[in-house]
Amino acid sequence: MKIVIDVMGGDVGPEVTMQGIAQASSSFTNNDEFILVGNSDEIKKNLKSKISIPYTIVESENDVEMHDSPSKALFEKPNSSIAKGLQLVADKKGDAFFSAGNTGAVLAFSIKLLGRIKGVLRPALGTIFPIGRHPLVLDVGATVDIKPEMLYQFALMGSEYVKSTRDIESPLVGLLSVGEEDSKGSVILKKAFELISQNKSINFLGNIEGDDFFTDKVDVIVCDGFMGNVILKFGEGIVKFLKNGLKETVSSSLMAKMGMGLAYPSLKKFFKKLSYDEYGGAPLLGVNGISIVGHGKSNARAVESAILNAKKLVEHNFVQHIKESFEKRSNGEKD
Amino acid sequence: MKIVIDVMGGDVGPEVTMQGIAQASSSFTNNDEFILVGNSDEIKKNLKSKISIPYTIVESENDVEMHDSPSKALFEKPNSSIAKGLQLVADKKGDAFFSAGNTGAVLAFSIKLLGRIKGVLRPALGTIFPIGRHPLVLDVGATVDIKPEMLYQFALMGSEYVKSTRDIESPLVGLLSVGEEDSKGSVILKKAFELISQNKSINFLGNIEGDDFFTDKVDVIVCDGFMGNVILKFGEGIVKFLKNGLKETVSSSLMAKMGMGLAYPSLKKFFKKLSYDEYGGAPLLGVNGISIVGHGKSNARAVESAILNAKKLVEHNFVQHIKESFEKRSNGEKD
Repeated sequence: MKIVIDVMGGDVGPEVTMQGIAQASSSFTNNDEFILVGNSDEIKKNLKSKISIPYTIVESENDVEMHDSPSKALFEKPNSSIAKGLQLVADKKGDAFFSAGNTGAVLAFSIKLLGRIKGVLRPALGTIFPIGRHPLVLDVGATVDIKPEMLYQFALMGSEYVKSTRDIESPLVGLLSVGEEDSKGSVILKKAFELISQNKSINFLGNIEGDDFFTDKVDVIVCDGFMGNVILKFGEGIVKFLKNGLKETVSSSLMAKMGMGLAYPSLKKFFKKLSYDEYGGAPLLGVNGISIVGHGKSNARAVESAILNAKKLVEHNFVQHIKESFEKRSNGEKD
Repeated sequence: MKIVIDVMGGDVGPEVTMQGIAQASSSFTNNDEFILVGNSDEIKKNLKSKISIPYTIVESENDVEMHDSPSKALFEKPNSSIAKGLQLVADKKGDAFFSAGNTGAVLAFSIKLLGRIKGVLRPALGTIFPIGRHPLVLDVGATVDIKPEMLYQFALMGSEYVKSTRDIESPLVGLLSVGEEDSKGSVILKKAFELISQNKSINFLGNIEGDDFFTDKVDVIVCDGFMGNVILKFGEGIVKFLKNGLKETVSSSLMAKMGMGLAYPSLKKFFKKLSYDEYGGAPLLGVNGISIVGHGKSNARAVESAILNAKKLVEHNFVQHIKESFEKRSNGEKD
């Protein structure tokens, strides 16, 4: 298989991405290939660890910056690493695309160049929440004006994604609402509840609540992109707040400083468990191809696991599965 | 003034509520009165500290349990402490109502017995987020199917609430969205943005994001009840998760245990700052009377501060202010 990788994206620069690529390469064979898209000088300069499988370099220019708006990227940067990389997948010259770059730009180019799978109303951006059963949360920002049918499709696609990337035959799916009872939630939520319930191929647990992000009830959390985005940012905010607050608190007392020094190794282990590094990036589901975005602050391990996730999705024919489950429905077949 | 207090509500029982009442009484004068609603035996039994102002007891029966559904409470418990207490405010025999009981039941009875202020589309439940400028977040669960006009009204009522309860002349208001730019958010959010912008009596900062819960940008955070509820529960979930996780981590290592022991006093001080106790309960805005719900796990200090908040709202003619600002609008006056 051929994995296309944007080397220019990410707040941390090509060095970290190249390191992640090198690490990932040991999980591939000589029948596979990496297509690295970016500035070839930068790529060569940062090629510090050996890539153990064949690779080619595709030159890009005028790359997307992290602060560029999606529309600016779309209209002004058609030769950027993101655009060129996704074009390769669209042209079937690559099997999957990964970028640690500007999420909005990756979404915009993915939708434009790969297109939507027939029957998919809106694509959804998923992300793994690193607690409990490590649920895939979707959508986290692609779609803000939601309809019940879209939430239903997110449940279906999220379920397929978890099946393809983990050893879970029948992933548990929860719908994020304001109470566990079927009758709770907005009009849109109640209708979505009904639609998801009707598809017997989805292992639907029913409504879940905000605190269920921290229990181990489900493998997939379905919500609209507005909610998903706010929750994600809220989570990032609280982590930053606690970090700064604890640092300040502890540094104000010698005893506290000594104490935290002693406790540090155990604490580090605990917080390490909460890291996103192991979870392979945020997949864009519903587009006609595999497209994965890494966190802008991805480290080499995060890049590596995103590439390995892309590999799993190719091996499991993920896009084909989504296509089939949508075709089945449009043919009126019962699931 | 007369403050009506439900003594039977709360997970912790009448003892804690009575202690809070006694503490609050020292901030009132002999011209004021407490009306305590509940089982008189329970009230007398738990009257351990002196209430320094006059008070009367109103007998209730068949009180609302914490797990009762709002509709069960509404139809089966018309003589409960919540129902009888709110009826006193509706009949102008009391100036404000406080309960640490079942939030859904307090909402349902408040709307039924006090009614909505003319012009208010939907009431909103507010809560203080104990970080940054301690913003009032509303709505946190009263209204799940939202319209732009409702969000606009939440901004107006939230702003009035902060003016009445704190020394802030022109509270900063933010609209919770997925990006800071005006153009971000759902169709509903964009329309709400426009409406809020047009009312010059609101000091509107514009869109804020999920991580702004942890910055000190605004005094009022406007969102729909669905979002507010999920965020609140998510926050409760993360606190519980961190507490348990840290406990487990630390107890697995003697060194960590010793270290945390040394750091404990400083850590306690930090976490104390994040407590809801000081912030006076969750007000229900838009109903024709003052109705405040405490957290089910309210301690005496939380009960006390909720009662003192009720006092401020009465002193500032809060309900009258809301009425006037809505009348002004229905008369077509410019703000």
